[in-house]
Amino acid sequence: MTRDPHPWAAGLASLHAQVWTCLVRGVHDRRAPARHPALATVTPDGMPRVRTVTLRRADRLAAQLDIHTDLKSAKVSELRARPFAALHVWDGPGHLQIRIEAEAEILSGADVADIWARVPEASRLTYGIVPPPGEPIVSALDYASAPGRESFALLRLRVRAIDVLHLGPDHRRACFRRADGWTGQWLAP
Amino acid sequence: MTRDPHPWAAGLASLHAQVWTCLVRGVHDRRAPARHPALATVTPDGMPRVRTVTLRRADRLAAQLDIHTDLKSAKVSELRARPFAALHVWDGPGHLQIRIEAEAEILSGADVADIWARVPEASRLTYGIVPPPGEPIVSALDYASAPGRESFALLRLRVRAIDVLHLGPDHRRACFRRADGWTGQWLAP
Repeated sequence: MTRDPHPWAAGLASLHAQVWTCLVRGVHDRRAPARHPALATVTPDGMPRVRTVTLRRADRLAAQLDIHTDLKSAKVSELRARPFAALHVWDGPGHLQIRIEAEAEILSGADVADIWARVPEASRLTYGIVPPPGEPIVSALDYASAPGRESFALLRLRVRAIDVLHLGPDHRRACFRRADGWTGQWLAP
Repeated sequence: MTRDPHPWAAGLASLHAQVWTCLVRGVHDRRAPARHPALATVTPDGMPRVRTVTLRRADRLAAQLDIHTDLKSAKVSELRARPFAALHVWDGPGHLQIRIEAEAEILSGADVADIWARVPEASRLTYGIVPPPGEPIVSALDYASAPGRESFALLRLRVRAIDVLHLGPDHRRACFRRADGWTGQWLAP
C-alpha cells in the first residue's frame, strides 16, 4: 500500500487550506511554485494579456494578494480600465493548479510609502525604468533606471473565487467563492 | 572572464530563434519549460481567465501553435465568443519570459479525425468528461470519462506577436510581430 502523498486533496476544507499554504510559501520562499504566478488582465479593447509577477503578500483571512509593479507598466493601465485579474499557479510537486479570480486595486504614492520604505535597494532598480516599460528603443540597452516612490505601484488583488485542480490518481477539481464563505464546491475536472 | 550562457539574447534574430527553439522543445520534451504554458482568454462578459495547457505542436514557419482540449471546456466557449488568446511561458534555465498574442481557431469533428486517431488511448480519457468540465458535482469523483472524437477539440493559435523578456546581467525585452515579418523591436524592459 502506498501512502497518499496529497491527503489534503480528498476534502474541500483541506484542499482550500492547501491553496493558501502554497500561496503563503510563495511569498516567503524564492523557489516555491507560487513565487512567480502568471497574472492575466484584459486590455481596454478586450484582448487577453498575461505575464509573470512576483507574489509579495498572501493574506488568507482577508483573501488578498499583493504584487509590486512599475506604475507605468501596461498591467497598471489595463487594470485601471478593467479592474479584474486572473492569477495562475502550477505547483508541480503538489500536482496542483490554482486559478484565482480577483478584483484589483492600484495603490501608489503616499498610500505605499511604508511599503516602498521596506523595498530593498537592489529591488528598487526594477521600478522607474526610463523610457517606461514597453516603449520602443533603438538598442537593447537604451534605457535607465530612475527608482523612486513615484514609479512604484502595489496591486492589491481581492480574491473572488479560486478554481483548484489536483491531478492525482483521480483528478479532483473544486471552486471556492468569497460569496459562499469559501465552503467550496466540487466540479467535474 | 565568464562565458555568457545566453549569447542569443544579444541580437533580435537570435532571440527570436531561441523563442521557437524553446517552444518546439516544449512539444517534444515533457520536462521542457514550454511543455505547459498558461493560456489566457477573456470571458464573454470581459473577465480574464488563465489555465495550464499542453503544447502539442509548434510551427515556426507558419507561426502556429496547437493545443488539444475538451470541446465542452470553458476555454472553447470563451474562444468562440472572443477568438483571442495570450500564451505565457517562463523558461527558468533560459531566464526567458515568452508572451504570445494569438488568434485562436477551434477545430473539431471530421477536421481533427487524423489527429484524434494519433492520440494515445490513455490521453483520450481526458476528453469527454461527463458531466462536462466545470459542472458542479456532489462528490469529488462523481464524473466519468466517455472519450470520443466528438469531445475532442484542437485550438490552433495563429501567433500575431511575441513579447520576450530576458533577465540577464542586463535585462532585454523585444517584441516580434507577424505584421513586421518578425524583424523585432527592442523595448524598454
